[in-house]
Amino acid sequence: MNDELIHPKELPFQLYEVLDTESLIQRERFSEHNRETFDAILETANKIATQKFATHNAIADADEPKFDGKNVHMIPQVKEAFDAYNEAGFMAGRYDFDEGGMQLPETIMMATSGYFMAANPSTAGYPFLTVAAANVIGNFASEELKQQFMPRMLSGEFTGTMALTEPHAGSSLADIRTTAIKNEDGNYRLKGSKLYISAGEHQLSNNIVHLVLAKIQGAPAGVKGISLFVVPKYRLDETGEVGQRNDVALAGLIHKMGYRGTTSTALSFGENGDCHGYLIGEPHQGLKYMFLMMNEARIGVGFGAAMIGYRGYQYSLAYAKDRTQGRIPPNNSPADPATEIINHGDVKRMLLAQKAYVEGAMSLCLYASRLVDDTKTRESAEERRMSEELLDLLTPVVKAWPSEFGVKANDLAIQVLGGAGYTREYPVEQCWRDNRLNPIHEGTNGIQALDLLTRKLWQANGAGLEILQKRILADFSQASGPECLALVNKTQGYMVKMQALLPSLGVALRSEKLPNLLANAQCFMNVFSSIVMSWIWIRQANVAEKALAQCEPADKPYYLGKIQAAKYYVNWELPLVNRDISLLESSDDSCSDMQPEWF
Amino acid sequence: MNDELIHPKELPFQLYEVLDTESLIQRERFSEHNRETFDAILETANKIATQKFATHNAIADADEPKFDGKNVHMIPQVKEAFDAYNEAGFMAGRYDFDEGGMQLPETIMMATSGYFMAANPSTAGYPFLTVAAANVIGNFASEELKQQFMPRMLSGEFTGTMALTEPHAGSSLADIRTTAIKNEDGNYRLKGSKLYISAGEHQLSNNIVHLVLAKIQGAPAGVKGISLFVVPKYRLDETGEVGQRNDVALAGLIHKMGYRGTTSTALSFGENGDCHGYLIGEPHQGLKYMFLMMNEARIGVGFGAAMIGYRGYQYSLAYAKDRTQGRIPPNNSPADPATEIINHGDVKRMLLAQKAYVEGAMSLCLYASRLVDDTKTRESAEERRMSEELLDLLTPVVKAWPSEFGVKANDLAIQVLGGAGYTREYPVEQCWRDNRLNPIHEGTNGIQALDLLTRKLWQANGAGLEILQKRILADFSQASGPECLALVNKTQGYMVKMQALLPSLGVALRSEKLPNLLANAQCFMNVFSSIVMSWIWIRQANVAEKALAQCEPADKPYYLGKIQAAKYYVNWELPLVNRDISLLESSDDSCSDMQPEWF
Repeated sequence: MNDELIHPKELPFQLYEVLDTESLIQRERFSEHNRETFDAILETANKIATQKFATHNAIADADEPKFDGKNVHMIPQVKEAFDAYNEAGFMAGRYDFDEGGMQLPETIMMATSGYFMAANPSTAGYPFLTVAAANVIGNFASEELKQQFMPRMLSGEFTGTMALTEPHAGSSLADIRTTAIKNEDGNYRLKGSKLYISAGEHQLSNNIVHLVLAKIQGAPAGVKGISLFVVPKYRLDETGEVGQRNDVALAGLIHKMGYRGTTSTALSFGENGDCHGYLIGEPHQGLKYMFLMMNEARIGVGFGAAMIGYRGYQYSLAYAKDRTQGRIPPNNSPADPATEIINHGDVKRMLLAQKAYVEGAMSLCLYASRLVDDTKTRESAEERRMSEELLDLLTPVVKAWPSEFGVKANDLAIQVLGGAGYTREYPVEQCWRDNRLNPIHEGTNGIQALDLLTRKLWQANGAGLEILQKRILADFSQASGPECLALVNKTQGYMVKMQALLPSLGVALRSEKLPNLLANAQCFMNVFSSIVMSWIWIRQANVAEKALAQCEPADKPYYLGKIQAAKYYVNWELPLVNRDISLLESSDDSCSDMQPEWF
Repeated sequence: MNDELIHPKELPFQLYEVLDTESLIQRERFSEHNRETFDAILETANKIATQKFATHNAIADADEPKFDGKNVHMIPQVKEAFDAYNEAGFMAGRYDFDEGGMQLPETIMMATSGYFMAANPSTAGYPFLTVAAANVIGNFASEELKQQFMPRMLSGEFTGTMALTEPHAGSSLADIRTTAIKNEDGNYRLKGSKLYISAGEHQLSNNIVHLVLAKIQGAPAGVKGISLFVVPKYRLDETGEVGQRNDVALAGLIHKMGYRGTTSTALSFGENGDCHGYLIGEPHQGLKYMFLMMNEARIGVGFGAAMIGYRGYQYSLAYAKDRTQGRIPPNNSPADPATEIINHGDVKRMLLAQKAYVEGAMSLCLYASRLVDDTKTRESAEERRMSEELLDLLTPVVKAWPSEFGVKANDLAIQVLGGAGYTREYPVEQCWRDNRLNPIHEGTNGIQALDLLTRKLWQANGAGLEILQKRILADFSQASGPECLALVNKTQGYMVKMQALLPSLGVALRSEKLPNLLANAQCFMNVFSSIVMSWIWIRQANVAEKALAQCEPADKPYYLGKIQAAKYYVNWELPLVNRDISLLESSDDSCSDMQPEWF
């Protein structure tokens, strides 16, 4: 069977044909790069992911990390993969040349991460979390902290975590109880418990740098009183070398359904009153710092979900091309040979749905990564601001839609394999279990729906939505082929309906209908995200329909598949939101009226 | 937290208020029973399920059966539970008093099985498969075979399996290759391999009675040449006692994602040329015998899926009433205490959707069980025939809908728990993994959709559909309260739309549009099953709305919950089929046109 992690045409199509990533080399920051350097880094990622990551994905699932009361042990292949990733320089890929980085666009780095997520999301978790933590330090910490920790995180000598959640406070960070008291030495002593901290303990690195949300004694209540601290597992000595053990203890490992290779930990800070923490930036600004990085972290979650979905899709596709079963009319007498199951209509449907979900999700996340590049490297401040507004608006969709539909895609992959799909002898069940984390972490999908409906939609007087609509219409105006024009026409009808909803939603947010609206937040997410995904698919179909007129015959099937997936999405998925539009229009109270004692 | 397996009002409501199960005691066969004997057996089931089954559900999942090359070993609690089930007489519950049975209605026996499926579906698999196999022998085998095997299966001394699937033939039984050659002794020698045979090997019983599909040498090709054999693990000696080992070997255990406590086996028949098999009934009629029992087996799958869904619902409900997190406007300042998460609109939505799915699925399956009783014990032949037609039509929905929505319910249960739901420290992830088998086995849901659209709908000139429509309208005419009348009105609109579709579907089945229609079979399943489920919910809401006028105040919340769940179903789920209706109307070709090389 096919063992390519990603179809060889897919990333070049997304990056160069749809997103015109090559144009980034016109920008000062990327001017040393060209298509060849981009392709080289992608090829290196593919190679390392295939040779070092994919090879132990199932092994790490079956033999998860164990805590012997003192140390956490895991299979050695994780460390080998982690080292290979670091040696190739991926950790610092986004950073400046003079920081030892490769000064690559976010779009390219996100694409490279696709290989690792498809190959082995659990092992990929260690470097990815480290990069995310390093980014926070790089953006907001003092020069001293930066110099102490960042270079060693970017080399992979140190790893990082994000320690937000507490046992009683998951979605509601306002309620965290970890405290920080200022010490005579100018630093802080922390005390508290954190839960579900990914990569919170392991032996992969010489040190683990926890970014910890805590409240400084006397801070304001709620989110306005949260500060952010660097809390290393080992303190650094005067020479900057790894020194004394800090008062951070592993209380236990959490045993997850999937994503088993990434340790999930309960951590105790300051059990012995000696947990040193170093404030990042200003007091009480911790949540802001975290959230400024959150857009990027959430693209990572969405893209990871897309890639786990993609892996299941590729596997079930190869299986369906190989496995024979049953017959298709008119050749359905027992004497006829059995057909490959890909020829059965219902199997086609399940494969096409997967394609629409996972390639759509990939495309969306790469679009968002491009926006990250644009917020940093577009020439004018106005263009950078507009990129930010649009990215802010899209972020809840970028996190929630791929994670919802990635799991659905994996569910369909299991169904295509039938009984085989339900066994641990085939990889698709692991994909499904691994992917199920994504609708939960980095803000549950329910939180994303609320964020979209109650905040992002109205932010800066609805500037994000206005920019989005302009971009959609600009892309739609590029459609010229009959297939795309039909899809554009259908999607525009839904855009009109959504637009018509907005005034009443705005009023409801400030009226006694608020509870109804909050209970129906997912409906608005469905409407908004389905329109966004139709646009994302039409962008791909536009490119494909134009390419068909001039491409090599060998390339035609690929482009025809893109158009067909776009048709599937707009004809099969988008119309489902008529239900949501009706419920929002009528301010439906089926959910909000339900009383706890009626269950 | 709540540790009731099933809400104490739920089964009495379904059995006595909705289905009027008490009226069955008017029938000759059940005349020795009354409400008290029914309740006593339900209470016994609840007790054994709670004390013997639920207690090792997670343990059996974490410590699955192992094969040492000679025997299969499993935790001892499985055998204790199996024995307790047998000692209480459940295995023979449906059978005549003079066969040692309890002569109980199928409806009551199905309800008892609900406790075991909610408590521990894997351990419940062993007795349930035995009963299913015993039923086939009881209905179709010779007196001699019956006497040899049935009593000992009904006492639990022997267990049973259904050995249909082969490595190359899952959905397509026409292609099985296991052969049977008649021997001088008048019996057969079998040779072949079977795969995914549940309970195919274990140490729970003195013998395992495999019902094996095989082709007698020289038989016609395809399904017309399939015969059914009794193939015991141990042959019986002349005195009828367990004798020599038969030539049936365990080739290996299959390792599943869930349902781990039930062994799934690869079996080799006749590796040494000495596998004795005893023909059931006539040659070449094997598939017919299997399928005559299939309606009942498929209700069991549907009900099991409903009950695993129900268990996750109950757990997530108890969690949501207990766990505090965040605040609800207007009490959302940090100084306000955190609220139980059940008060958040989106959590209400996820709980109400689960309720609608799992209580709807329970109600549907109990309705189908009542039809089984009716096919056997209604007075007139005409009434029995009509019950059969209706049951035949509903069976694909009874199998597919609960298994699809049971998994969705478990997915929502995980989401309600958030991070906790993703860990193996909480039971909902196991529910999700266990339930994922149900859309696959006993005919995949894709096969069910084809069965409905291409066969059941048209069977006997559409008699089943006609009976269904009459029953629906009769139930709708009972609606008098304003809530139910509104739901009836909405549902009738969809019934009209479905009716309008039928002529063109009938034509398409015999035209060049057949491939489009087959690729869209799931769309028709969606339309049909959503109308059926709306009806099933309106039946419950009707009873509830009437009961509200006269019930004790303490019972009101329960009935209000039923009405609200019916509203949710009809307002939120039913309208989704407008999409499917449009696709069927336009004979949409998005899926059927997709070519294998375009993926």
